[in-house]
Amino acid sequence: MQGIGAENLGRGKFARRATIAGAALGGLGLLLAPVVAIAQTTETQFVLNTFSFLIWGALVMWMCAGFTMLESGSVRSKNASVICLKNIGLYSVAGLAYYALGYNLMYGGEPGGWIGSFEFLYGPSEAEAALLAGDATATAEVLDNGYSVMSDWFFQMVFVATTASIVSGALAERVKIWSFFAFIAILTTLIYPVVGAWTWGAGWLAERGFVDFAGSTIVHSTGGWAALAGILVVGPRWGKFRIDGTIKPTPPSNIPSVTLGVFILWMGWFAFNGGSVLALGDAASAVTMSNVIVDTNLAAAAGVLTALVVSRPILGRLDLFAGLNGAIAGLVSITAGPDVIGSGEAIFVGAIGAVVCTAGIRLLESLRLDDVVGAVPAHLFAGVWGTVAVGIFGGGNVGVQLIGVLSVGVFVFSASWIVWTLLDKTIGVRVSRQVEELGQDAVELKIDAYPEFVLMVDPDDTPDYRETHQTGVGP
Amino acid sequence: MQGIGAENLGRGKFARRATIAGAALGGLGLLLAPVVAIAQTTETQFVLNTFSFLIWGALVMWMCAGFTMLESGSVRSKNASVICLKNIGLYSVAGLAYYALGYNLMYGGEPGGWIGSFEFLYGPSEAEAALLAGDATATAEVLDNGYSVMSDWFFQMVFVATTASIVSGALAERVKIWSFFAFIAILTTLIYPVVGAWTWGAGWLAERGFVDFAGSTIVHSTGGWAALAGILVVGPRWGKFRIDGTIKPTPPSNIPSVTLGVFILWMGWFAFNGGSVLALGDAASAVTMSNVIVDTNLAAAAGVLTALVVSRPILGRLDLFAGLNGAIAGLVSITAGPDVIGSGEAIFVGAIGAVVCTAGIRLLESLRLDDVVGAVPAHLFAGVWGTVAVGIFGGGNVGVQLIGVLSVGVFVFSASWIVWTLLDKTIGVRVSRQVEELGQDAVELKIDAYPEFVLMVDPDDTPDYRETHQTGVGP
Amino acid sequence: MQGIGAENLGRGKFARRATIAGAALGGLGLLLAPVVAIAQTTETQFVLNTFSFLIWGALVMWMCAGFTMLESGSVRSKNASVICLKNIGLYSVAGLAYYALGYNLMYGGEPGGWIGSFEFLYGPSEAEAALLAGDATATAEVLDNGYSVMSDWFFQMVFVATTASIVSGALAERVKIWSFFAFIAILTTLIYPVVGAWTWGAGWLAERGFVDFAGSTIVHSTGGWAALAGILVVGPRWGKFRIDGTIKPTPPSNIPSVTLGVFILWMGWFAFNGGSVLALGDAASAVTMSNVIVDTNLAAAAGVLTALVVSRPILGRLDLFAGLNGAIAGLVSITAGPDVIGSGEAIFVGAIGAVVCTAGIRLLESLRLDDVVGAVPAHLFAGVWGTVAVGIFGGGNVGVQLIGVLSVGVFVFSASWIVWTLLDKTIGVRVSRQVEELGQDAVELKIDAYPEFVLMVDPDDTPDYRETHQTGVGP
Repeated sequence: MQGIGAENLGRGKFARRATIAGAALGGLGLLLAPVVAIAQTTETQFVLNTFSFLIWGALVMWMCAGFTMLESGSVRSKNASVICLKNIGLYSVAGLAYYALGYNLMYGGEPGGWIGSFEFLYGPSEAEAALLAGDATATAEVLDNGYSVMSDWFFQMVFVATTASIVSGALAERVKIWSFFAFIAILTTLIYPVVGAWTWGAGWLAERGFVDFAGSTIVHSTGGWAALAGILVVGPRWGKFRIDGTIKPTPPSNIPSVTLGVFILWMGWFAFNGGSVLALGDAASAVTMSNVIVDTNLAAAAGVLTALVVSRPILGRLDLFAGLNGAIAGLVSITAGPDVIGSGEAIFVGAIGAVVCTAGIRLLESLRLDDVVGAVPAHLFAGVWGTVAVGIFGGGNVGVQLIGVLSVGVFVFSASWIVWTLLDKTIGVRVSRQVEELGQDAVELKIDAYPEFVLMVDPDDTPDYRETHQTGVGP
Repeated sequence: MQGIGAENLGRGKFARRATIAGAALGGLGLLLAPVVAIAQTTETQFVLNTFSFLIWGALVMWMCAGFTMLESGSVRSKNASVICLKNIGLYSVAGLAYYALGYNLMYGGEPGGWIGSFEFLYGPSEAEAALLAGDATATAEVLDNGYSVMSDWFFQMVFVATTASIVSGALAERVKIWSFFAFIAILTTLIYPVVGAWTWGAGWLAERGFVDFAGSTIVHSTGGWAALAGILVVGPRWGKFRIDGTIKPTPPSNIPSVTLGVFILWMGWFAFNGGSVLALGDAASAVTMSNVIVDTNLAAAAGVLTALVVSRPILGRLDLFAGLNGAIAGLVSITAGPDVIGSGEAIFVGAIGAVVCTAGIRLLESLRLDDVVGAVPAHLFAGVWGTVAVGIFGGGNVGVQLIGVLSVGVFVFSASWIVWTLLDKTIGVRVSRQVEELGQDAVELKIDAYPEFVLMVDPDDTPDYRETHQTGVGP
Repeated sequence: MQGIGAENLGRGKFARRATIAGAALGGLGLLLAPVVAIAQTTETQFVLNTFSFLIWGALVMWMCAGFTMLESGSVRSKNASVICLKNIGLYSVAGLAYYALGYNLMYGGEPGGWIGSFEFLYGPSEAEAALLAGDATATAEVLDNGYSVMSDWFFQMVFVATTASIVSGALAERVKIWSFFAFIAILTTLIYPVVGAWTWGAGWLAERGFVDFAGSTIVHSTGGWAALAGILVVGPRWGKFRIDGTIKPTPPSNIPSVTLGVFILWMGWFAFNGGSVLALGDAASAVTMSNVIVDTNLAAAAGVLTALVVSRPILGRLDLFAGLNGAIAGLVSITAGPDVIGSGEAIFVGAIGAVVCTAGIRLLESLRLDDVVGAVPAHLFAGVWGTVAVGIFGGGNVGVQLIGVLSVGVFVFSASWIVWTLLDKTIGVRVSRQVEELGQDAVELKIDAYPEFVLMVDPDDTPDYRETHQTGVGP
């Protein structure tokens, strides 16, 4: 993002060092300042780079709350507690898995490689430990890294959690809790880190010039492919697609909750994309971060309005849910290149992303694929568009971008399909029809999301089950 | 805010340049440092100023979620989805409109003028583009601006969105979706930017010494006047004011949602006021920002407790909704001068703001004006008080402050009234009585906010309509 | 946290000055830079330290919204409005009380002492006022403080508010509104500041080497002890503990709201612990802040998963509410030493904290103590464990840590018990049985949290009362 060739290699330890070193050199050329001043400058840059990871990382973590609100408002009330559990659980699993192995697998490899290192655990550098123990001579080595080691880990960790969040919504209302967590553990320990090693870890795709600034493909399409494999293995909810070809409506149970979720995601995306500049210590990084955040906002705004307009011809009504997904599709679309795409183009990229997403909702329905929250259209389809768009509008190579889209797609979809299938053959991935009708909350958690509210009865649910369910909060 | 005369001219490109140049000069005088050190300092200041706009701007955007939660919890359930749509839509419309024209109209004018420039679109400076393209010689020109160009645009954009948010709540439950968006487009493209040009754009009001730090008048009263004009043209909800003089109670449908909204707004206000220091690169700005945030919190706290206490004599009971509006009124009141009003006075200003707001709720009812969320009392009435208060307690000129209040009021109210009336005469602004009874959600969006919850029936709604409505989520 | 002995003395004016001066000296030794450069560096450090207080402080304030959502979702619907009122009210009371006296009582004392000064009000330093008035010669004195005076006040204030938040949930559904606020006023004006004076105020406990980085004891156990005293004086909800020894289930009324609350708290905890580094101006502080935030996240993640696993043997089912409390218990546990405990140990500390909390829920039930949200297990029990854990894993002295736990416990519990008892004997602390059955919302606020939703009737409530209640939103 600073006109430095190394930037296109990806992001991660290697790329970032190059970037920051380049910035420091630029500062040197500009200032002709004595060595002491540069050292001091670098400490301020170190602090700013580190703080950027921390504060933006905290707001990206907050996106998990956004997914939770979006998903718990999208499912029917009888499954709202379980989706809350899955979301807070997946964030916990992802954080521990990425700490245990994932990060090293992503960033521990050689440039141009296929995979990182199989080292366990991760921690501050020796120089940092020495500095904290009072050894001031370690400062130079600490500063040389450009940012504190664990601040980078934190920022990368919240990205893997985002990937995992995409899966939970698509498969809501029928996936077993522990099977879901097992898949998430593998996704965050192995599958996502391998994709990351190819790209941000400076691997073979990065070497070919594949560009994905903050993860249209690496995060969002990866999550979308994993969800799509799950949708195929797990199958649709009972009764969703009827024998006569009609589709049973399953409207969101809590629209304000869905809306809140989208607002959280939108705000979190400023952090997701803004923090992905990976530096804040110099003027060029600050300018880039500003442009990135403005692009992000324009693409999302265009996504909302476009989706609202096209929802009537495509879906047959002014569709709020499509409009909300349009925001997400716009955000996903611009994520691959907000640093290199101009503001006007960002509006166009977001708008097309929203069309792709809205049409994708229709497409999935016609294929009788049951995606409860529209995660595949919003994250996978719009992610593909965004990755291609950075080739068209951002100076990337469309051919290379497509190689990236395809190779990530083949790998993630295949690996996810194998894992889902293995889980299906062993512990099973799907709750019984009876559990679906009673709701996962009542059976798996013995809790209701809204135990005091009188609910309308779904006439498709078998009455016998219902009686068991309607015990309420009685003594 | 730094004892620099130029500050009172307003905020925006001109005022800000003066401020930052002043700070840099102060630093120069203090340090007697060589030129190279100053240049380097300026890069750090540039980064900090820019980052302040970005991170605080992100949290101001988050206030839109606060308005959404406040409003969707305040309306009746049958209109909760449409208010969600209006809120995410208005933020999108405002962002695009302010990008297309609004910003230039606000900040592109000559000092002392009445209006900015009619240029379309906005973008990074040529120097910034050169810097990002690798031309390090452009750095000095980039730094000379004090902050990155688009970070300022972003921060100003979220303010226009806040103004628009104020309108949606007041007119909830009866304004047509597309008429509302049409009004918002004009408000954010033209009306708000003209007010901004007079003041923060260094126009005629700024030249006279009008003081409005973060927008008690410019943002909050402007939104309030636009809402009041809409209330008059659109009229009250059917059945709200009965022939016998009594008022139909329409309690908030979801109190925790309203409370969450107020907490979001309160936190966002730290960003709204704190970021309005417009700089973070020097000690004086940091001290000012601290004082501003503390004032903001004290005024809001005083607002809550005062409103709770006075709600019993004024409204006849300990009124939670009044208490929540008291927080907002306290925040609006202090917004004109948190940099120049002392902490103790901030408590007083916030408390009086809450009294004004609570009495204003009563006043509107007695005038039979239907403001669903109390936006006019909280934003307009408290905004007027806050603008006057900075004349009393903050060293401003009360007369000039009143000129500002009046001129903005006359302009915004007149312009809004004309726009609302034109919309009324053309596409219509108001849904039919039948739609009101069935709810906008069911008719305009064909969706229910809470489709599974069994709702109490409003006995005023015509039974025939109700039957159409109560189809629920059936197959 | 920087290997500086003074750090262990606590935090607050004295400790902080030592820390920041130490950092500046470290920078001096490293750089051998001329005086002008150091002065400039210090201005940047001053800005960064100040900004750290402000932005993290804003996110800690946001935790109040988290407590509100957690608590309003945990209580039964008939008391959800009052708990919203209590939460926004307690934040307001705490802010004014800590401004009026609390801060001086906490930080105005002599090193090694028992209590601060009884000065009223607080404000910017004279040097800061001079700087803002344009006197550049005051800059050196301003910078000498290391951060702006009011930014520190703001950060400390949100901590006292957190302490107060802990009490509201435990005592929900039966404490009178104004008695609750009276207790909170005393807690935040006197009780918490005295504990703070012993520790972060560099008092006698700090002098003995007691370590509590961000308040496992000082904030969380203090809140927990105050809540426990209230639980004993106020007594359990009517009918909670039956004569036959069984316990009436009172499940959370809104699980997604509880989950949202926990996510807010989790994100806020990055600010709570990260901001407690109390500095951001140098590399060591930035590294420490990174490690602190990573520890915080790992402990919480371990807490969630551990609580889910142990909930089945301890509570008899996979318990979502226990899992959510496990996050909080993990966060509370690591809070005493995230700067000195390694990442691997953080996982262990969080996991044990979750076991302690889950077992604590069971223990309280067996003691027939009615804690509506599990505040005592999550904040007091886990807080004690965390305070001890920093002795075991973080280089502290376990004996001294236990002295801290005991002395704070004896003081806070006794003082709180006396205050609750005095309130009970005078204005009364508990609503009548009739109010409990009708709900505090209907009686004390004359408002329903969800007036349009048809609610299941609790069969334990007396029918006569119920009729009064079920008037709904009728005309």
